[in-house]
Amino acid sequence: MNKQLVFHYLSKILLLGSLLFLLPMAVSLYYHEHDTAKIFLIVGICTAIAGVPLTVIKPKNKHMYDREALVIVALMWIVYPIIGATPFYFSGEIPHFVDAVFESVSGFTTTGSTILTDVEALSRGMLFYRSLTHWVGGMGVLVLAIAILPSSNDALTLMRAECAGPQVGKIVPKGKWSAAYLYIIYAALTLITIGLLLFGGMPLFDSVCHAMGTAGTGGFGIKNDGVAYYNSSYIDAVITIMMALFGVNFSLYYFILAKRLGDVWKNTEIKVYIGIMAVATGLIMIDISPIYHSFNRCLRYAGFQVSSIMTSTGFATADYTHWPGFSQMILVILMFIGACGGSTGGGFKVARVIILFKNSLRSIRKLLRPNSVNVVKSDSKTMDVQVVHSVQNYLSIYIGLLIISLLFVASDNADFSTTFSSVATCINNIGPGLNKVGPLGNFSFYSDVSKVTLTLDMLLGRLECMPMLILFSPSVWRKNF
Amino acid sequence: MNKQLVFHYLSKILLLGSLLFLLPMAVSLYYHEHDTAKIFLIVGICTAIAGVPLTVIKPKNKHMYDREALVIVALMWIVYPIIGATPFYFSGEIPHFVDAVFESVSGFTTTGSTILTDVEALSRGMLFYRSLTHWVGGMGVLVLAIAILPSSNDALTLMRAECAGPQVGKIVPKGKWSAAYLYIIYAALTLITIGLLLFGGMPLFDSVCHAMGTAGTGGFGIKNDGVAYYNSSYIDAVITIMMALFGVNFSLYYFILAKRLGDVWKNTEIKVYIGIMAVATGLIMIDISPIYHSFNRCLRYAGFQVSSIMTSTGFATADYTHWPGFSQMILVILMFIGACGGSTGGGFKVARVIILFKNSLRSIRKLLRPNSVNVVKSDSKTMDVQVVHSVQNYLSIYIGLLIISLLFVASDNADFSTTFSSVATCINNIGPGLNKVGPLGNFSFYSDVSKVTLTLDMLLGRLECMPMLILFSPSVWRKNF
Repeated sequence: MNKQLVFHYLSKILLLGSLLFLLPMAVSLYYHEHDTAKIFLIVGICTAIAGVPLTVIKPKNKHMYDREALVIVALMWIVYPIIGATPFYFSGEIPHFVDAVFESVSGFTTTGSTILTDVEALSRGMLFYRSLTHWVGGMGVLVLAIAILPSSNDALTLMRAECAGPQVGKIVPKGKWSAAYLYIIYAALTLITIGLLLFGGMPLFDSVCHAMGTAGTGGFGIKNDGVAYYNSSYIDAVITIMMALFGVNFSLYYFILAKRLGDVWKNTEIKVYIGIMAVATGLIMIDISPIYHSFNRCLRYAGFQVSSIMTSTGFATADYTHWPGFSQMILVILMFIGACGGSTGGGFKVARVIILFKNSLRSIRKLLRPNSVNVVKSDSKTMDVQVVHSVQNYLSIYIGLLIISLLFVASDNADFSTTFSSVATCINNIGPGLNKVGPLGNFSFYSDVSKVTLTLDMLLGRLECMPMLILFSPSVWRKNF
Repeated sequence: MNKQLVFHYLSKILLLGSLLFLLPMAVSLYYHEHDTAKIFLIVGICTAIAGVPLTVIKPKNKHMYDREALVIVALMWIVYPIIGATPFYFSGEIPHFVDAVFESVSGFTTTGSTILTDVEALSRGMLFYRSLTHWVGGMGVLVLAIAILPSSNDALTLMRAECAGPQVGKIVPKGKWSAAYLYIIYAALTLITIGLLLFGGMPLFDSVCHAMGTAGTGGFGIKNDGVAYYNSSYIDAVITIMMALFGVNFSLYYFILAKRLGDVWKNTEIKVYIGIMAVATGLIMIDISPIYHSFNRCLRYAGFQVSSIMTSTGFATADYTHWPGFSQMILVILMFIGACGGSTGGGFKVARVIILFKNSLRSIRKLLRPNSVNVVKSDSKTMDVQVVHSVQNYLSIYIGLLIISLLFVASDNADFSTTFSSVATCINNIGPGLNKVGPLGNFSFYSDVSKVTLTLDMLLGRLECMPMLILFSPSVWRKNF
């Protein structure tokens, strides 16, 4: 492996990443939290210093293969959230280091699971920083780097390793510009969310934090009661719709802006995504009608929760652990389906579900007529058989990791629903689960073994397994690889 | 499709199947249960009459393709358990017809889930019949027919459609003799089990019933307390070991008898199967040691439950719903892994898990070195890429059906653990689950919708999905197919 290249890129990203700590520092200063501001400044400076020496050394061989890209992404996603945990830890606001890393990884991977029992006790700067990790992690730290840094011949290779979904394509010929366009759309949608929330009477600070949590499909709140605190059907509606929009493949927004509406219309994933959301909302509305009585309230709570869980955001306006078992089952299934590929959302991705569904139908047809030629079609073009196999491989690996994680987390002897939903919610980057880890619960009761397992699950889920698994392959670390 | 051929075979099997009702009739007569005996006689005669007319008509085209075999197997497995439900229903011992079908399907598919709240209230003849369904269903109704009926050129095609596992091979050149050998080994092992149980002081009737439940890896008991009723560590040990033996691929027993020990030694599945059992037993022993204190009791209860769940039998000597969450999680995972292919056990099968595991490693290696040639090896021979894909297809279909079933069963609003484990235990043909459907619970509280869903799950699990799914394909029923 080309280690020089790997470390060169990592250092560049650290240099750039150090700037990110300046934003929460400014917020801390504004709120006169000088101690917190100092910590952000120190962490920023240290990160920058760590990045300098290796940036200077230019790699001899500049060609990047898939394996280098995967290793860069994996290492970056381990190193950066650990650095990101230090402000929590050194400020004393999260005094246990494993907890601080859990919270930081949960932020960057846009999971939104928390070990905090009282989120309102945090300082303003720290609350802002916590939501900022969602925003940066949502679209990807590396994609941001690609968009900003000058030399990026290998932009597409890197983007493919960091972005989610079975087929990540570039929307414009140059990868660098793809990344830039994506971030511009992302930022614009975030600003719209802030504006809409402000319009509903939410304070500026709260609006910015919630908009970042919505954009990254993260789900960290700033109130102990979550979004329910604001008790406004307008705010619920805004967040419901914006979460759903951030769960859509971002290429579609580019196509809309570029007036390529045909490309949008041909997209099967978005239709299935909307269809699943509508059906799930309808079923839950019927199921919870004995609790909420009025149609409007049922729509408000069911719609919000479906959008929140399916996009893997994890905000909550109702304690769905008290909903009937049928509604809870729908939410658990939505956790696994997840959002669209190429969005900020997590989960298995609607596109993959479609591919597996079509391929299953094909395999049944094939059994009936062994001599006929059957090809899987997606978006009106014949689908590469390689894509089908890579999705199937992904499914096997995903289930294998799910089972191993269940065993580790079960060692804490929580009830089956809690354990199962904890792993499900972390590996799919949702946030809350069932029972003890429901929307009003948290992950503080888990042992360090479970917290570390769930932290790894969040990373595996965010990067869709492969980059992380490659790090465990001894051959990557051999000298002459 | 060659409908004449399909109905010709179905009729033959009905004729043969009618004889099976004579056995429980004899048992009923022995215990002076004349009303029960009469019902078995009437059901047997009606089944035989139904079978006569179509056997007479000989099909013009005798060649059997895969699709005919699959349709025969699927129809037979729907028709026969429904006929098998009539003795329960007409005797009044299970007065609700959906319940009677559930119990019958649970018997033939060797699941062992029950809707009975008081099993000891059944007559002797009915208890015997209930266990007999396990014995017949375990190795397969069709395989039995192949072994006994004279003309069976298409024996292997039929066997492959009914038997479990990724690769069903014939052990001797002629399919008919393969079936006969399998049944001889099966019967011999059953007789050994009866002998061993008698030796431990279990009454003859109880021994025969438990031996049939063990052989078919079914799990229907005849006491409300299950196997715990006998409170004998010797009996526990016998059943533990025999369950494990019935979960092994039966080809291996043929190889041992034929002194082809090399073939046994090369078999990876058996090693992994024993390995998983040993590790699971060890982990559970450590986990439950605070409950049972002594090493021997921990070994006795953990070993029994691991063997019972992994082989998909479902007998219980302890109420594991009171064990710690870690042990319960191990048992749930074992439910999904299941026994070896080509055994009477259910689940996903160890052989398939191995194939998926090896293929996952291969796909990771391939990402690192895209130009190298990687082939999946199994049992020292290169594995057909088609087998890998069919296992992956099976996994997708299996998960899809699991999710659909979860939705239907969740409509009864039981807690998540109960719903999830109900579907898991039925689709994997185990028997008991967690919480309400634990070893001391039963499935009687479910609505008819859930019972029908779970009944279909048992059939789908037993036949490994494909035959049942093909029935839903409209093209099968078209005239000129």
